[in-house]
Amino acid sequence: MVAISFYLYYNIYNLEIEIGKGENKIRHKSIKFDDSTLYLLDQRKLPGEIEYFKASTFRDVEYAIIEMVVRGAPAIGATAAYGVYLAALEYKDLPDHDFYKQVLKSDKILADTRPTAVNLVWAINRMEWVLENNIEIGRETILSSLLEEANNIADEDIEINRQMAKNGNEIVNNNTKILTHCNTGSLATVDYGTALGVIRMAHQSGKNIRVYVDETRPRLQGARLTAFELVEEGIPAVLIVDSAAATLMRKKEIDLVLVGADRITANGDTANKIGTYMLSELAVRFNIPFYIVAPVSTIDFSINTGEEIEIEQRSSREVTHIDGSEIAPRNMKVYNPAFDITPAENITGIITEEGIIKPPLARGLANLSTKKQKETE
Amino acid sequence: MVAISFYLYYNIYNLEIEIGKGENKIRHKSIKFDDSTLYLLDQRKLPGEIEYFKASTFRDVEYAIIEMVVRGAPAIGATAAYGVYLAALEYKDLPDHDFYKQVLKSDKILADTRPTAVNLVWAINRMEWVLENNIEIGRETILSSLLEEANNIADEDIEINRQMAKNGNEIVNNNTKILTHCNTGSLATVDYGTALGVIRMAHQSGKNIRVYVDETRPRLQGARLTAFELVEEGIPAVLIVDSAAATLMRKKEIDLVLVGADRITANGDTANKIGTYMLSELAVRFNIPFYIVAPVSTIDFSINTGEEIEIEQRSSREVTHIDGSEIAPRNMKVYNPAFDITPAENITGIITEEGIIKPPLARGLANLSTKKQKETE
Repeated sequence: MVAISFYLYYNIYNLEIEIGKGENKIRHKSIKFDDSTLYLLDQRKLPGEIEYFKASTFRDVEYAIIEMVVRGAPAIGATAAYGVYLAALEYKDLPDHDFYKQVLKSDKILADTRPTAVNLVWAINRMEWVLENNIEIGRETILSSLLEEANNIADEDIEINRQMAKNGNEIVNNNTKILTHCNTGSLATVDYGTALGVIRMAHQSGKNIRVYVDETRPRLQGARLTAFELVEEGIPAVLIVDSAAATLMRKKEIDLVLVGADRITANGDTANKIGTYMLSELAVRFNIPFYIVAPVSTIDFSINTGEEIEIEQRSSREVTHIDGSEIAPRNMKVYNPAFDITPAENITGIITEEGIIKPPLARGLANLSTKKQKETE
Repeated sequence: MVAISFYLYYNIYNLEIEIGKGENKIRHKSIKFDDSTLYLLDQRKLPGEIEYFKASTFRDVEYAIIEMVVRGAPAIGATAAYGVYLAALEYKDLPDHDFYKQVLKSDKILADTRPTAVNLVWAINRMEWVLENNIEIGRETILSSLLEEANNIADEDIEINRQMAKNGNEIVNNNTKILTHCNTGSLATVDYGTALGVIRMAHQSGKNIRVYVDETRPRLQGARLTAFELVEEGIPAVLIVDSAAATLMRKKEIDLVLVGADRITANGDTANKIGTYMLSELAVRFNIPFYIVAPVSTIDFSINTGEEIEIEQRSSREVTHIDGSEIAPRNMKVYNPAFDITPAENITGIITEEGIIKPPLARGLANLSTKKQKETE
């Protein structure tokens, strides 16, 4: 039903980005749209293989998000935006009524791919707004407006990440040992990264930092992706199993915890990769600053607390198998939530492109919401 | 140099133990000595393959402990005892002086296989005591005395585990949800288990319990071994990634934490599998009883605090590879301590075959030490 094509696009189609000034290093683009095709760096195959997944239809995009070819809240947002455009392209020759019906139906399918990250719905809403506001205009104009909006979402994400990184860099002192969880780098975004963006900026601005990376079971985004990005960029880093973080904290080997977010509620409660909440409790225990780094698009002002967030339960196979190898007996039950909720009271601050929100987070977030509403009025 | 032979001994040589009364279930023996050969259930291959490793020389035993064919502090103790016997057998035709020299040299090699578990040295010391006290007697008598002592160590371990399980079962109420870490079952001991022995006894005594098992990265003893034992015995259980424990505790899904130990110092500080300390901090945070289950042989009265325990650092490959699959980029640095230290103040009690030691642990352990000294006088 769903046509999936894999191609090796390494070093073709301009899929690399130069790192730093004059440095002879590159990093691989997570997302690249070109000539009606979305190229996604296949994150299931890293770090062993650098391979691009080619999505030509919105169903390819649906598959890519569900199977986590692409992951990370901001990256999913931009990917879904291109997915909406691909749906519009697919149905462009239908009569008006059918065209809108089919595109909105596709949007619904894309929005349902993963329940926790709010950027997904946010990006699709932006695309639908463009669709609805161009209803009277010709089909070609609608298509070009949709592509422009998807490109805007992607381009803005890069700018937002750089601004977050600048804001975050102010709290990173020289000689800081930073713990991070999961992947929040250029692979989790369109480029640069959220929490890993702050780390990147601290390194690029000449600060001496050391990064401890949780491997982040079950999908090992820390080991496979964050470690890959850190090695690629030459940032001093050490990989640990998730349960070793407590020992490092007790030994005073961690000065700062930086993590991303999949959804932040109005009171500051934050859904992020399973294990984040554990780190927040340990950070409280050891008085270690614990910061969330996330764009404003990750904040869901429509719900008040983390209890209202739907936590995605993923397949038990993610825990019982690694690369096809069976590591648990059959018939073993598994509890595999993709995310956990870190309560606002455990969070030292939320680093956004609009600045750093400090406790009480509910008040800071309310002020931000008011500001954003005024901007769009 | 070291001859290693692998044979499939499933269902041969009486390597299964019947579980329960009248229940048509078996469990696989971790250790079995028969006719100058030590059979070790190869724990690197579980749960996929049930295969026995055949150790015919003390060098085979050295290999088996280093490579973790056999692991778990009590199991390592009994294995090393048979290793001493195999060394004596190997050198039995040498003149007196050379015989003792070679056996003691072998003991040293066996004692150096793993630095943290104290049972290893304890068992070798027991074997050397037999050797030294039979110095005037004929070689055949020495050999039979050594074999008898190794068998005693193994048999006593089973009795001790059952007594610990009885003692521990008293603190397990009906309808208890228990979290455990690593493997402390029949595979970590000669039979029955320490922390998992308590769980087994609670189940066998008809209590309704549910067990949450940390998969226990990096070597996945929870997923591979504990899950295997729980499924084999039909105890209701759920597998989780290590970093999900905090979420379960917050949701009040954990009533009790039971873990084993590799070494307990005179003040009650406890070395156990990496991740144990993390659980202890979370248990304190959520007021959840946190018990160590370990035989008296795990207590090292010669050192006062956990700071004096040498923590084994294991290969980075344990973290970067799973079953030959590369899950992290090359050149990535890794911090891979096999154990961590749980401070005495985080421990609700230590369940031993002599009863449950309650805080202040230092006093309870001192009383136990005095009692043990009087017994041997």
